[in-house]
Amino acid sequence: MTARLERLQGALRNAGLDALVLNPGPSLSYLTGLHFPLTERPVVLLLAAQSAPVVVLPELELLKLAGLSYEMKAFSYGEDPAGWEAAFRQAIGALGLDGKRIGVEPRALRLLEYRFLQSAAPQADYPDASGVVSQLRGRKEPGEIAAMGKAVAAAQQALRATLPLIKVGMTELEVASELTVQLLRSGSQPELPFAPIVSAGPNSANPHASPGPRPLQKGDLLVVDWGATVDDYISDLTRTFAVGEVDPEFKKIHRLVLEANTAGRAAARPGVPCATVDQAARSVIESAGYGAYFTHRTGHGIGLEAHEDPYLRGDNLELMQPGMAFTVEPGIYLPGRNGVRIEDNLIVTELGADCLSDMERDLAMVG
Amino acid sequence: MTARLERLQGALRNAGLDALVLNPGPSLSYLTGLHFPLTERPVVLLLAAQSAPVVVLPELELLKLAGLSYEMKAFSYGEDPAGWEAAFRQAIGALGLDGKRIGVEPRALRLLEYRFLQSAAPQADYPDASGVVSQLRGRKEPGEIAAMGKAVAAAQQALRATLPLIKVGMTELEVASELTVQLLRSGSQPELPFAPIVSAGPNSANPHASPGPRPLQKGDLLVVDWGATVDDYISDLTRTFAVGEVDPEFKKIHRLVLEANTAGRAAARPGVPCATVDQAARSVIESAGYGAYFTHRTGHGIGLEAHEDPYLRGDNLELMQPGMAFTVEPGIYLPGRNGVRIEDNLIVTELGADCLSDMERDLAMVG
Repeated sequence: MTARLERLQGALRNAGLDALVLNPGPSLSYLTGLHFPLTERPVVLLLAAQSAPVVVLPELELLKLAGLSYEMKAFSYGEDPAGWEAAFRQAIGALGLDGKRIGVEPRALRLLEYRFLQSAAPQADYPDASGVVSQLRGRKEPGEIAAMGKAVAAAQQALRATLPLIKVGMTELEVASELTVQLLRSGSQPELPFAPIVSAGPNSANPHASPGPRPLQKGDLLVVDWGATVDDYISDLTRTFAVGEVDPEFKKIHRLVLEANTAGRAAARPGVPCATVDQAARSVIESAGYGAYFTHRTGHGIGLEAHEDPYLRGDNLELMQPGMAFTVEPGIYLPGRNGVRIEDNLIVTELGADCLSDMERDLAMVG
Repeated sequence: MTARLERLQGALRNAGLDALVLNPGPSLSYLTGLHFPLTERPVVLLLAAQSAPVVVLPELELLKLAGLSYEMKAFSYGEDPAGWEAAFRQAIGALGLDGKRIGVEPRALRLLEYRFLQSAAPQADYPDASGVVSQLRGRKEPGEIAAMGKAVAAAQQALRATLPLIKVGMTELEVASELTVQLLRSGSQPELPFAPIVSAGPNSANPHASPGPRPLQKGDLLVVDWGATVDDYISDLTRTFAVGEVDPEFKKIHRLVLEANTAGRAAARPGVPCATVDQAARSVIESAGYGAYFTHRTGHGIGLEAHEDPYLRGDNLELMQPGMAFTVEPGIYLPGRNGVRIEDNLIVTELGADCLSDMERDLAMVG
């Protein structure tokens, strides 16, 4: 078994769990090195605290197990869904898990897999075990940190190649498409962490905007929130630009957000609660009277996923530890007008925090 | 309300359901025109059979409701998860859904949303209502068919632009990256239906391979399974190429798969069971003695998703109807050696089926 699987088994025993069940996604890949797509064909990995892993999967995925360096028992099924339940029952039976405590990841597991499990192990409990896996995934190893550094470098290179191509009159969608091309040219895997957000003018006041057909206009702020994937690890950055000359208030909120970003980055170090980093960034914006316009948390963990633990919220008293990777991304959004966000990627070290991203943050003009 | 929402309400009443619950994904977008990301913040749309839609969502997504042309009641929550349950309880209360029959999509709904719903409506039943939505989504309207045609055209243009760039010694990953760039240049949205599968030699014998670092070698078969997204609708095609001169058996299995593809495409028309199309393609391969190496169903529905109803399996007696869109994609996979798949996209018409894809299918040489 891998060292990660052994650590997981220890963590399961400490948490009083008999097993953990995972469907395709980053936790499964992290622990096993295997990649399965999430489709209408259910795939689950059953990790018992005391025995070798068991997997339920369609026959056409069996080949992926060929190169494994450790034991994994597979129960496969054919194309007819009538046979799927039997594979689940065999897997649960092989591990004797009915009546036991089987941890789940509620943010990943679907009713599809859950109902097959419930029918195979109706007497089992299915407590939330997200924390067990995220504790492991949350402390990045040197190889993971190196991959994240490459993902930041690829993202920065891609935006630098895109900026000179941005002109007034281009649509948000056109800019997003060009940036995506440059991300691939810069070495990102085709599976980006998320489709780039390119939002200008009123759309930039929506923190989760999708790029639209509106052309860039002079006086717009332009928010670009983008990332790359390298060796399966992601980056997630944001910079805000001015399309030509912009309203003095927009320059002011950009300066405030940059101050908040700087304060948040400076506050991160081992032993400090996540809430403190949020507070460091937020208080800059609140003191200036814009608190109501900073409508989201200050950041979130990153790694194999674009959003993972730890979350940098005012209510999160979890202490930062070396190896934690996260974003710092304060913003100010003036509804119907314009918005600003500046986002960097950090790793907690033994003494403080390293910022992986170093692309210039001052309000630069494009177009 | 939109015509689609009205049709859905009728379908819910016919199915004896009081409501349908959807989380972010294609069904929600199809019915409402809204797009939400699937994240750690739960979003659910509650569609009652008799009242206006209700949505539970984070405050930072509220702006997306601004442009709606119909009534939707929103219950929003802030960043602290402690407040999320209350928003679910208010939404369930507003529709009086506790104790009622709330349909779910098990392939989409996660335990995250399900547990909030269960705690807000503990006496409700949550039957599988996938069929209610897929019946609506399964009969494509002219605008949807036009979008799928554009998605096929963009995909074909992208592969045509990529083929001359493929050389012996390039890795699968490099070819996949170049193809992705060309997909964006051809007008695909940045959110591709799936990352292109580029698999050669032994990897091509795995129907669900991921592109890897192995360089293309003379004598390989090269399977390219790719698609584009245009106006939110997808295409999903596969062609197989020869890298230089290949083993005569590989040419033979390519010819067989092409015959099977042709037979499958010819069998599709209204009133024919999906199983018949599967059988038409499969029997070609079985008669030639390669049945054991065609390890998957012949095809699947396409539209807003790369995999949706109807599934072309031997056990699916559902009858084809005008407006259904699906793939025909037989394959032969010789484990450890090489594989072939040829995939096209079809729409059932009043009299037969139109093939949207027309890129040459014969075994062409690349490299």
